[in-house]
Amino acid sequence: MTEDLADDIAEVMPGVLLRTQGVTAAAGFRAAGIAAGIKARGGPDLALVVNEGPDLSAAGVFTTNKIKAAPVLWSQQVLTTGKLRAVVLNSGGANACTGAPGFQDTHRTAEELAAALSNWGTNTGAIEVAVCSTGLIGDRLPMDKISAGVAEVVHELAGGISGGTDAAHAIMTTDTVPKQAAIHHSRGWNVGGMAKGAGMLAPALATMLCVITTDVVATAEQLDAALRAATSLSFDRLDVDGATSTNDTVLLLASGASGVTATQKELDGAVLAVCDDLADQLMADAEGVTKRIRITVTGAANEGDALTAARTIARDSLVKTALFGSDPNWGRVLAAVGIAPVALDPDRISVLFDGQAVCVDGVGAPGAREVDLSGIDITVDVDLGVGGATASIRTTDLSHAYVEENSAYSS
Amino acid sequence: MTEDLADDIAEVMPGVLLRTQGVTAAAGFRAAGIAAGIKARGGPDLALVVNEGPDLSAAGVFTTNKIKAAPVLWSQQVLTTGKLRAVVLNSGGANACTGAPGFQDTHRTAEELAAALSNWGTNTGAIEVAVCSTGLIGDRLPMDKISAGVAEVVHELAGGISGGTDAAHAIMTTDTVPKQAAIHHSRGWNVGGMAKGAGMLAPALATMLCVITTDVVATAEQLDAALRAATSLSFDRLDVDGATSTNDTVLLLASGASGVTATQKELDGAVLAVCDDLADQLMADAEGVTKRIRITVTGAANEGDALTAARTIARDSLVKTALFGSDPNWGRVLAAVGIAPVALDPDRISVLFDGQAVCVDGVGAPGAREVDLSGIDITVDVDLGVGGATASIRTTDLSHAYVEENSAYSS
Repeated sequence: MTEDLADDIAEVMPGVLLRTQGVTAAAGFRAAGIAAGIKARGGPDLALVVNEGPDLSAAGVFTTNKIKAAPVLWSQQVLTTGKLRAVVLNSGGANACTGAPGFQDTHRTAEELAAALSNWGTNTGAIEVAVCSTGLIGDRLPMDKISAGVAEVVHELAGGISGGTDAAHAIMTTDTVPKQAAIHHSRGWNVGGMAKGAGMLAPALATMLCVITTDVVATAEQLDAALRAATSLSFDRLDVDGATSTNDTVLLLASGASGVTATQKELDGAVLAVCDDLADQLMADAEGVTKRIRITVTGAANEGDALTAARTIARDSLVKTALFGSDPNWGRVLAAVGIAPVALDPDRISVLFDGQAVCVDGVGAPGAREVDLSGIDITVDVDLGVGGATASIRTTDLSHAYVEENSAYSS
Repeated sequence: MTEDLADDIAEVMPGVLLRTQGVTAAAGFRAAGIAAGIKARGGPDLALVVNEGPDLSAAGVFTTNKIKAAPVLWSQQVLTTGKLRAVVLNSGGANACTGAPGFQDTHRTAEELAAALSNWGTNTGAIEVAVCSTGLIGDRLPMDKISAGVAEVVHELAGGISGGTDAAHAIMTTDTVPKQAAIHHSRGWNVGGMAKGAGMLAPALATMLCVITTDVVATAEQLDAALRAATSLSFDRLDVDGATSTNDTVLLLASGASGVTATQKELDGAVLAVCDDLADQLMADAEGVTKRIRITVTGAANEGDALTAARTIARDSLVKTALFGSDPNWGRVLAAVGIAPVALDPDRISVLFDGQAVCVDGVGAPGAREVDLSGIDITVDVDLGVGGATASIRTTDLSHAYVEENSAYSS
């Protein structure tokens, strides 16, 4: 989190952020996660988050990839009502590039979940159920397993720490740890969230599934505004490998169970705090990560230029491999930013690694080759020398482990 | 080379392409390569190509990176005259991001080379000397070594196979083999070339140094037209890692020594044939390469879209790691092309690996997961399903060797 952002959040959010709680940190929500046999290698793979109300307001942000998975197409449609009762999520298969039959599978999952919830005592229609899937692209889901799992998972619903934590485990793919964050506001309302995502982490949304809950009283419009503002400053600024998945989904559900109304600014701050913390957790657990890198561009003509420059550096394979090797090879940073479609002054550009100047006014600084980058966290600051705008991107290094993990995924 | 391109070339170029000859395949050129002590690890590191005329026509294409090395700034200036007597090239240091002192080093190199050539009997001004440098960004060149080397290298100038081959060796950095190509036209004129480049191979020019010579009679304008057409179809369509260096330079020098005049089309064809073959050699020797990949996009709305889509796939780390693992994970190809800013139809898109359909109309084809990609050469064909335009990009996989080589370059 940048200092400015931290200040903004602190101002409106007199609360504590915890990573031990997730979607059930907010009143009115129950969740569950079970092993339904969807993943070939076993383990939890089906999660459910249910909003018990009284409100059912909801908003969502989805992948900008033109190739959209069936659950994305379904959930986008469902969310046009601004209402959600439940979100059912599976790992073990993305249900992307599966054609009309794949869409029917998603539809059927929502119908079966709605029926199960109704039997369980919470009257629900399929149109109130969002579906999220993650895993390999191109294969149909094992619908026998999904159907049995959907009937079972409603019986495991729980509040408190356990329900949310079980759900957070069940959405993991190559993630090594579950990701949860919750904020408890001093005025008696809460925001909690869970996320998964380790590869295909990229721009238009860090590729991922994320469900955020709150017990504040808010309309779908307020939630939508808060969610768009938060994702644009958090997940959209996490760029591990420049890839955007077919399944990116971030949902925000409000139960109103606290009975408390917040200002838009308070809501924005709390949702951003949770998203920003989850983004940090995604970066820390990205595929093959050995370095957590924060690239900040200053001195840009405008924020768009700063963001484009930071993203271009974050995606450069030669910068990422150098940082994997703890090599202060600042020339690669200059070569990378030099191809970004932004205004810069080659004779005024400067670069700092971990706060130490390695390039000043376009020329190497004394001692630049001796900067110690052996730590896990590395900051790269680049001043373009033409203006006053700034922006940051979180990224990771390009390591042997990244190559290893991604060269043997489907097989 | 695409079939269309091969047809075009065959039509205008009734000649044989050889890889045993390079810049001295054309009459009127001599070249040399020596070990001047510029590279810390030793080996040949200073090359010279001299045009003995009668003509001194020349053209050049340079990096589009905003951060340009001193030799690029110098050579661009020199080439405004449309004339070159000589090109002096060094490996062991890029002389980029070295400020005004670095530019003075380049200027001095040109002056000293001009003086050495004049002493040797070929009256030369510094304004007739292009300079190319390659190696680590950010360090000053060891000018004592350069000066001594420049005085020495003129005494080694030779025609025939040896001069060109020595020069091709002296410009290598992480290249494992020298790259040369020559075409002998049946009407008695020739085009020869050499190139280096293994990392930072990218779009605006596959990052590289390349010198091409011809003994045809041609003006600087004819050479410029032929060179721009050829690089746009060859080096510009080689994309190993999306990085564009600060030093990219491609030069074309004509001696007129054959006394033969060619049509523009003949010249275009011959220069393209040499550039295309050198691009193939660059791909085959790219850093960490274990797979040589040709990505062809068809069914695009226009050629620009086809090129953008092919380039987006070529740069996708998840596609490149999958192909390193011989994994026919076609879902990643769809996810990659889905973020390209081009028109496509998700329900009509198709993908072939090595000519075998793995995705038809946006859905996996039977047997797709069993396609054998264990060979070194892989073709990926993607039809966007919206139009009739096509384009190809050469790329390579993302391997452990790429990470290894690039995480320990400067140190």
